[in-house]
Amino acid sequence: MHFVAAIFSGTLLDIIRQTAGMVGRCGRAVCVTPEQCSDRAHGFGVCYGDPRKAGGDMAVVVGIAGGSGSGKTTLVEAIVDGMAPVSVVRLEQDSYYRDQPTLLFAEREMINYDHHDALDNELLVDHVRALVRGTAVEKPVYDFAQHQRTGQWQRVEPAPVVLVDGILVLESPELRELLDLKLFVDTDPDVRVIRRIVRDLRERGRTLDSVVSQYLQTVRPMHLQFVEPSKRHADVIIPEGGLNAVAAVMVIARLHAMLTA
Amino acid sequence: MHFVAAIFSGTLLDIIRQTAGMVGRCGRAVCVTPEQCSDRAHGFGVCYGDPRKAGGDMAVVVGIAGGSGSGKTTLVEAIVDGMAPVSVVRLEQDSYYRDQPTLLFAEREMINYDHHDALDNELLVDHVRALVRGTAVEKPVYDFAQHQRTGQWQRVEPAPVVLVDGILVLESPELRELLDLKLFVDTDPDVRVIRRIVRDLRERGRTLDSVVSQYLQTVRPMHLQFVEPSKRHADVIIPEGGLNAVAAVMVIARLHAMLTA
Repeated sequence: MHFVAAIFSGTLLDIIRQTAGMVGRCGRAVCVTPEQCSDRAHGFGVCYGDPRKAGGDMAVVVGIAGGSGSGKTTLVEAIVDGMAPVSVVRLEQDSYYRDQPTLLFAEREMINYDHHDALDNELLVDHVRALVRGTAVEKPVYDFAQHQRTGQWQRVEPAPVVLVDGILVLESPELRELLDLKLFVDTDPDVRVIRRIVRDLRERGRTLDSVVSQYLQTVRPMHLQFVEPSKRHADVIIPEGGLNAVAAVMVIARLHAMLTA
Repeated sequence: MHFVAAIFSGTLLDIIRQTAGMVGRCGRAVCVTPEQCSDRAHGFGVCYGDPRKAGGDMAVVVGIAGGSGSGKTTLVEAIVDGMAPVSVVRLEQDSYYRDQPTLLFAEREMINYDHHDALDNELLVDHVRALVRGTAVEKPVYDFAQHQRTGQWQRVEPAPVVLVDGILVLESPELRELLDLKLFVDTDPDVRVIRRIVRDLRERGRTLDSVVSQYLQTVRPMHLQFVEPSKRHADVIIPEGGLNAVAAVMVIARLHAMLTA
């Protein structure tokens, strides 16, 4: 922005001087060092956050909450696509279920996975903080069939945009404090339950009885008690999530503006 | 964007050629003619839409709906401030109540002004269409105490951004079709009624009895029947309206992106 404004306030000679002198040039933005430019080769990258500005943050953090089946993942994918070639990394709250190595499988099956007690939010918060500082993290790989961590870890490199998504992302005060943009995907409960039934029957080979009983026993009550009220903390509520292209491009426009400010 | 991209794909000589040759230069965008530039003097304006592109639209139209007291006006003001120096014009749906010259004052007082039948949406739609074509309009000046038009008109010049705000803006299919961005300001009913009571008592010299009885007899039922359901048509729902700075800057970022695309 500074560069573009300068063009129109100066002479052609100024333009030449400024252009020649900008070692950290990166698309619209002027980075402090060339290394901060996310994609110098194509000339339309953005600067990674300058650690000398804005409290040292190296990334913009976006939280995406909303009920099961609301369309959070579709919105995540729309943001990742729309931000390209700017790199976006994702931390799914689902990967951060607590590991309970001392419990038997039958005991682990009894855990209410729609309650925040089942989540290792401390680790998730640590990982968000690390990425914001520009440090890579090792995300746990979770086995949803066995209800435990696999013992494997997936490396997540720092990137200008960090997405954190999950039903309870806006419910945790510690997580909320790290979010620059708080989104809640709002979809009617009948549409959400249809999506969940279809997904669990088709993709996860479960029975209709087990899906319905889990929905009524834990998913629905936890949604009403924790997920729905967390909507109050959203900066913006997005009806129908990722299918809502107008909302997605709005989020993308704001992220571009934040990264090049 | 084309201009900026060109800088990084070309040589300094190319830059000089391109800069010198751009008669319609206007901030980041390259306008087709110099006249389309909204603020050439300051060099950071935007192009009015090129009539040879995008169906001839000369403006981006934003609809802002939400209940009485939700904070629509505060959001309007935040957008106007945030878009400066880009010119933004506002058409309040309130200015478009139907004129009923054949009715007596007592009859006009009986009209339900929270129902769309009281609105001259045809004229509002005509005015939005005219501004989008780049033509000025004469907005009626309404006398809320007498429940009739004053006979005066206020000239509204075309501008790159047209805001249309009112409780029923998203309820009319004809209006919705003209909106590039559909916003709904969502505020709890107790907060809204407090704002309405305070405003009507302090600024409009009304009695508590009359405010409460109007609220319960028309404002509330019409809200539940027409305003609240129109939220479904929103692209984005903004909790707490103009006090929500994060949402306002998101709208502003998107408008800038649309105007310079």
